[in-house]
Amino acid sequence: MSSVTPVLDTLSPPERIRSLSFHDLKALADEVRLETIEVVSKTGGHLGSALGVVELTVALHHVFETPKDILIWDVGHQTYPHKLLTGRRDRIRTLRQGGGLSGFTKRSESEYDPFGAAHAATSISAALGFCAARDLQGKDNRVVAVIGDGSMSAGMAYEAMNNACETTKSLTVILNDNDMSIAPPVGGMSAYLANLVSGGAYQSFRKFGKSVAERLPRPLFEAARKAEEFTRGMVTGGTFFEELGFYYVGPIDGHNMEHLLAVLKKAHSITDRPVLVHVVTQKGKGYVHAESAADKYHGVAKFDVVTGEQSKPKANAPSYTDVFASELIKRARIDPKIVGITAAMPSGTGLDRFAEIFPDRTFDVGIAEQHAVTFAAGLAADGMKPFCAIYSTFLQRGYDQVAHDVALQDLPVRFAIDRAGLVGADGATHAGTFDVGYLGALPGMVLMAASDEAELAAMIATATAYDDGPSAFRYPRGEGTGAVIPELAEALPIGKGRIVREGSKVAILSLGARLSEALKAADILAAKGLSTTVADARFAKPLDKDLIRQLAKHHECLITVEEGAVGGFGAFVLHFLAEEGALDAGLKIRTLTLPDRFQDHDKPDAMYADAGLDAEGIAIAALQALGFSESEIVKLAKA
Amino acid sequence: MSSVTPVLDTLSPPERIRSLSFHDLKALADEVRLETIEVVSKTGGHLGSALGVVELTVALHHVFETPKDILIWDVGHQTYPHKLLTGRRDRIRTLRQGGGLSGFTKRSESEYDPFGAAHAATSISAALGFCAARDLQGKDNRVVAVIGDGSMSAGMAYEAMNNACETTKSLTVILNDNDMSIAPPVGGMSAYLANLVSGGAYQSFRKFGKSVAERLPRPLFEAARKAEEFTRGMVTGGTFFEELGFYYVGPIDGHNMEHLLAVLKKAHSITDRPVLVHVVTQKGKGYVHAESAADKYHGVAKFDVVTGEQSKPKANAPSYTDVFASELIKRARIDPKIVGITAAMPSGTGLDRFAEIFPDRTFDVGIAEQHAVTFAAGLAADGMKPFCAIYSTFLQRGYDQVAHDVALQDLPVRFAIDRAGLVGADGATHAGTFDVGYLGALPGMVLMAASDEAELAAMIATATAYDDGPSAFRYPRGEGTGAVIPELAEALPIGKGRIVREGSKVAILSLGARLSEALKAADILAAKGLSTTVADARFAKPLDKDLIRQLAKHHECLITVEEGAVGGFGAFVLHFLAEEGALDAGLKIRTLTLPDRFQDHDKPDAMYADAGLDAEGIAIAALQALGFSESEIVKLAKA
Repeated sequence: MSSVTPVLDTLSPPERIRSLSFHDLKALADEVRLETIEVVSKTGGHLGSALGVVELTVALHHVFETPKDILIWDVGHQTYPHKLLTGRRDRIRTLRQGGGLSGFTKRSESEYDPFGAAHAATSISAALGFCAARDLQGKDNRVVAVIGDGSMSAGMAYEAMNNACETTKSLTVILNDNDMSIAPPVGGMSAYLANLVSGGAYQSFRKFGKSVAERLPRPLFEAARKAEEFTRGMVTGGTFFEELGFYYVGPIDGHNMEHLLAVLKKAHSITDRPVLVHVVTQKGKGYVHAESAADKYHGVAKFDVVTGEQSKPKANAPSYTDVFASELIKRARIDPKIVGITAAMPSGTGLDRFAEIFPDRTFDVGIAEQHAVTFAAGLAADGMKPFCAIYSTFLQRGYDQVAHDVALQDLPVRFAIDRAGLVGADGATHAGTFDVGYLGALPGMVLMAASDEAELAAMIATATAYDDGPSAFRYPRGEGTGAVIPELAEALPIGKGRIVREGSKVAILSLGARLSEALKAADILAAKGLSTTVADARFAKPLDKDLIRQLAKHHECLITVEEGAVGGFGAFVLHFLAEEGALDAGLKIRTLTLPDRFQDHDKPDAMYADAGLDAEGIAIAALQALGFSESEIVKLAKA
Repeated sequence: MSSVTPVLDTLSPPERIRSLSFHDLKALADEVRLETIEVVSKTGGHLGSALGVVELTVALHHVFETPKDILIWDVGHQTYPHKLLTGRRDRIRTLRQGGGLSGFTKRSESEYDPFGAAHAATSISAALGFCAARDLQGKDNRVVAVIGDGSMSAGMAYEAMNNACETTKSLTVILNDNDMSIAPPVGGMSAYLANLVSGGAYQSFRKFGKSVAERLPRPLFEAARKAEEFTRGMVTGGTFFEELGFYYVGPIDGHNMEHLLAVLKKAHSITDRPVLVHVVTQKGKGYVHAESAADKYHGVAKFDVVTGEQSKPKANAPSYTDVFASELIKRARIDPKIVGITAAMPSGTGLDRFAEIFPDRTFDVGIAEQHAVTFAAGLAADGMKPFCAIYSTFLQRGYDQVAHDVALQDLPVRFAIDRAGLVGADGATHAGTFDVGYLGALPGMVLMAASDEAELAAMIATATAYDDGPSAFRYPRGEGTGAVIPELAEALPIGKGRIVREGSKVAILSLGARLSEALKAADILAAKGLSTTVADARFAKPLDKDLIRQLAKHHECLITVEEGAVGGFGAFVLHFLAEEGALDAGLKIRTLTLPDRFQDHDKPDAMYADAGLDAEGIAIAALQALGFSESEIVKLAKA
């Protein structure tokens, strides 16, 4: 039986792509598209973005001498075609699975990934670093960054572009404009790009493309000549980029291989200044179900290739994100001062549902976490109640703003921190690991973590009621425990935890959603005859000092549990106990945190087990603290 | 004797400025300028920027109804004239002194400071928040942000501008263009602004200004009519801003009161879209010594008004910043891979000296910490040894980049963290409080703190030699201890501290420059008969586990000392000891940190004493831990 991917089959080693004919490059693109669809139907993942850059990926590897030439993909979620073409085809079906390929670019995975990513808008900065290193070392490689229009709302991209002209000679930035990040884009830049695309230059280039298609086959050099003319003629289009020092080419059709090759060769030849190639692509291109979906199959579960139907597992309980949205809507119906802010994640944070009901009270600022936080601070300074909903990992982008604009001024901005703790298939880049530490260090911050969805509802009520300064509540990715949520949750007393289970020998003090594992650990310990108290701290700050004192005083052993790195909740508890002198006479205390290493993507349960933060890990920590021997503990683990 | 400030004397209440005549406004500006010079000659502070905005400040308060209209100054270091005009004249001589006025805007100081600042580029984001709050609450106040051209290199400003057009009706952004932040500006935006200023529109406006001056006095409305014409004609100049949705007016001469009033009134009248007024000012304007100085008297000590001579106190030792510069230069002479990166702080970080010798190996990226970090990551990924020199407080801007682009990829970027710990007159906004916690939480980070300048030299050697992953070394503002620096410092063994003084009862484990106070505390304790060990941890990460074990095992009491917030070094030590079981049998351990509140500006020594981190505070903590009574401790404190 003949292969359905005859050209792709020949690409070992990958650099053979450089000698392919125009005809074969087009065929290769078709093969890569088909295989990408087929693979993601089995693994799930970021499909729409990958399909949008199939031709671009093929053309880039053909024109540029990767990996000697540096190719940096922004975010990296669109790189499944890139992975197929760069020696990872045999592992492509392990995408996003434990032990398998990352869903993003990753330096440790391939020399064709010179700079890993996952957060947006880092590519141009990194590319400029490679350019400077090249120039200082007297090398002559090209450097290419591919960045989506969604990333162009991020200040980091602007900072890099602002620096490009000063220090950089040879650099190609591909602006991959699909008029869509995860959600439709926002802001002046987006409107500007849309203008460029709807303008005469792009339309005439498209017409040229059609006339070319009518007369195919024809020699490539003629297309190159035409492209040269067009790029010259169109230089006037991108004044914004030209004002920052770029040579602007475009916009061109990113699915027209002929234009892509011609323009990329042109860009390759320009070595005296940075070039920006404005490429228009269609997210989900070539797969009808993706093209017609509102989100263009940005992120999908496994699906049926023929019907496009995704096989999302039946949920047992609403997700924390859903609960956040529902509860915030409830509160906002009562309190007109509540507004919601998202940084390009309306559906990821649930604020899309909030926006349906309160469009005027919802602000999607684009991928712009720094602005999101200080914008919220401005709202709070004028009496509103902003809920700034940002994933834990992305809030790192706004840390200075949280410290300098919110905490220092004691402004009542509410941070809704989704994706706290481990997140599974998205891996280390998306893990919400550090927020308890970096927020808990800030004076005046009220910092909560939800142990289930009813607690999340109560924390939203608490944040709504608390108007004396900043507050934050964190909650994990994925579904809740099925806890019953009251009609209207009541606010919690600030800085008070709760005892969930009473015991006498061991105390487990949990912050966040590991509480269910803590309770299971208590069962394990109880079965060993070790009476165990389990408490839900609720607050990482201010600490419930009375509760901690009591737990320390009345138990032989105290285990703290959190979904975060060292320097967070457990550290605060230890600091307090030390200060109180409560460690002077001895306390078998262990502070369990995420490990001091980045954990690769896997199923969250497997990752937590690896971290020792499952029931067994918690129980073992207690047993070790109590002096049980290794053999006794092993016996228990087997039981 | 008649007052030299007859108009300024009448401004109580401040809103009287609204009814002043044109003649009096000009006189007022002159008076404010004189008084600003006179005040800063006594207090020290940011003089150049203040002198550049005297006319602008007067004009803004005249045209806009502050404080009902919201006036937000970016950074806020240029607001001494603003403070003079808004009810703080009687306290103006306490500027930057302990207990006195802040050197920046501050909400708690005045209702005329609706949003405090100190870090750059926050003003437009905050202003947009005020606009949204206004619109949602049905109010009609104006919102004005004044931002310098230096801040325009920051991504945050771009993020805000990108959002301005979508959500904002009435907003005035004043671009205060003095072609100078602290150092000369960099980047494409700066070149673009320079182009606008040198272009025909600005020059013709200036000519118009001259012809106006020749025919004075004349009614203001005629100037307004002329300005109207000119602003209309000049709209074509600022396409960059127009592409983002602004109505652009300018550039205009920011020292010409007539133009300012006319254009600001025009801006005040536009309520259907955001307006950007491009104002050209001269840093240091009107004070000859400032105008002629290279840095335009950006930040000055007390000085003699007549001679301009600054009375900087005689240094006893070189500053840590100087030592950093000298040592990095030494290393760079040997190792051609070393490069230096600063975010608009060449002189503040000492990289200006490095740049003199290695201009091609120095990169000033502008106020753009996010880019600085990932740019450094790109350099490291291609084999260079980047030293990214950023103040602790500003590195918060690049936290996500440190985590996501550097630490996660284990790239050997070296962070030189100046201004670690308390900084004195610049106050809480500039304190380097959080870095040990937020960097120490990152897997793979090697994190050092220098206890004196010889140690700093050793740490630079260590960072140069260590190429397996990221490293950072922090050091305080101000002068060193006078420690002798060897000709060429040797690299330290990674994760190893040192015993500085041997004792038996109390152990003080210090990270950073409190070591000298720790030694003094040991003297105090020894005088009480308490034999005291003092150790210099050197590394916050990796911890010197052997050292900590030994200190814990062989002393009754262990005190950790650091110049940072809770969740940092002491927390790491506690976490480790707990994990080891070293607290099980009891240890009188105290982890001294900066307090869990923001400390107002004062002299650093006073601030450290307030924090309990001086010799006496450390000694008291040990005595308390050892169970000494309050009266015994009080007696000691008096001795």
